[in-house]
Amino acid sequence: MPLSSHLLENAVDQLATLPGIGRRTAMRMALHLLRRELHEVVRFSEAVRKLREDVRYCTECCNISDRPVCDICDNPGRDRSMVCVVEDIRDVIAIENTRQYKGLYHVLGGVISPMDGLGPDDLNTKELFERIKKGGVDEVVLALGATLEGDTTGFYVHRKLKELGVQVSQIARGISIGGELEQVDEVTLGRSISDRKPYEQMVKR
Amino acid sequence: MPLSSHLLENAVDQLATLPGIGRRTAMRMALHLLRRELHEVVRFSEAVRKLREDVRYCTECCNISDRPVCDICDNPGRDRSMVCVVEDIRDVIAIENTRQYKGLYHVLGGVISPMDGLGPDDLNTKELFERIKKGGVDEVVLALGATLEGDTTGFYVHRKLKELGVQVSQIARGISIGGELEQVDEVTLGRSISDRKPYEQMVKR
Repeated sequence: MPLSSHLLENAVDQLATLPGIGRRTAMRMALHLLRRELHEVVRFSEAVRKLREDVRYCTECCNISDRPVCDICDNPGRDRSMVCVVEDIRDVIAIENTRQYKGLYHVLGGVISPMDGLGPDDLNTKELFERIKKGGVDEVVLALGATLEGDTTGFYVHRKLKELGVQVSQIARGISIGGELEQVDEVTLGRSISDRKPYEQMVKR
Repeated sequence: MPLSSHLLENAVDQLATLPGIGRRTAMRMALHLLRRELHEVVRFSEAVRKLREDVRYCTECCNISDRPVCDICDNPGRDRSMVCVVEDIRDVIAIENTRQYKGLYHVLGGVISPMDGLGPDDLNTKELFERIKKGGVDEVVLALGATLEGDTTGFYVHRKLKELGVQVSQIARGISIGGELEQVDEVTLGRSISDRKPYEQMVKR
């Protein structure tokens, strides 16, 4: 049954383009927006448009940033000899929250995914290679998801960076801290066995 | 950690006002919007604003409608002596999809919910009572959710309508067609026993 309102139909269609949102949820969102004050909905609509229209990226690490150089790249206290390669700003936030990393970042803006039509040229890989060519970076840490796409991207970046003569490392994969063995999936557990390290090396920290 | 971009922060805040959307999902939506073409995001933003700005309601049944009188109220083939009271347009669509109902509707636009600060005056109840006062309606069918809010609203509407001398009925509650008894919740099963009907009456259809 077609909806009794073209406006509603259109809004539901658009809301359903959001990731993970089907038409049923989109309808719930549309009815929720209808119950809100006009000025609130205008503010919502403006925030979304302005984000896409006025977004700026850090000229060094490609992270989303209001200023030409982001706070992290601009911080003289950060170790400029290390660059951690991540998919997007969420990973930067996650790593910053660990307070374990004091180097810089490079945000790819995605991972290689032929299914989604994303190749290396759609990511900020060229910017990364240019940056490393300039010198001053001793180590690049790959911190991509442990997925097929993350691994493909890591392999590609690693191969290109090796040509530039920089050391490339990857964040450790294994069982979670606090995790019970019986609850770990087989692949991770198998990998954690083959990637085992000398005991003294693991507990000295 | 505050985000590196005020624009992103603002968009995430706004997306997180949608029902059922937390900050993590809102961030995923914002990054998804950033990857889309500008004209697509402008169309999204416009569709949402226009929905709220230009929405119109049927002057008879209060359903969302581009025209002053909606297609259902305008259809001479519908039974004008029956009015089915529902919460919102989703319920109209659900009932229309059954093809079991040929009367008209009245859309309340919500249910009484003190928790959300919604009283009878925030719903289209006055419009319903005015409509019934005009005459020509023999039966009002309450088709509200079987929840505390739905029941409260049904009770209120029923009491007011009784004063106007119109017959009020409520859609049947019981076990689902095709349902196994062991999977039905206790309250529904208990209710279906106390609301039992003569066998001949149930199977004659």
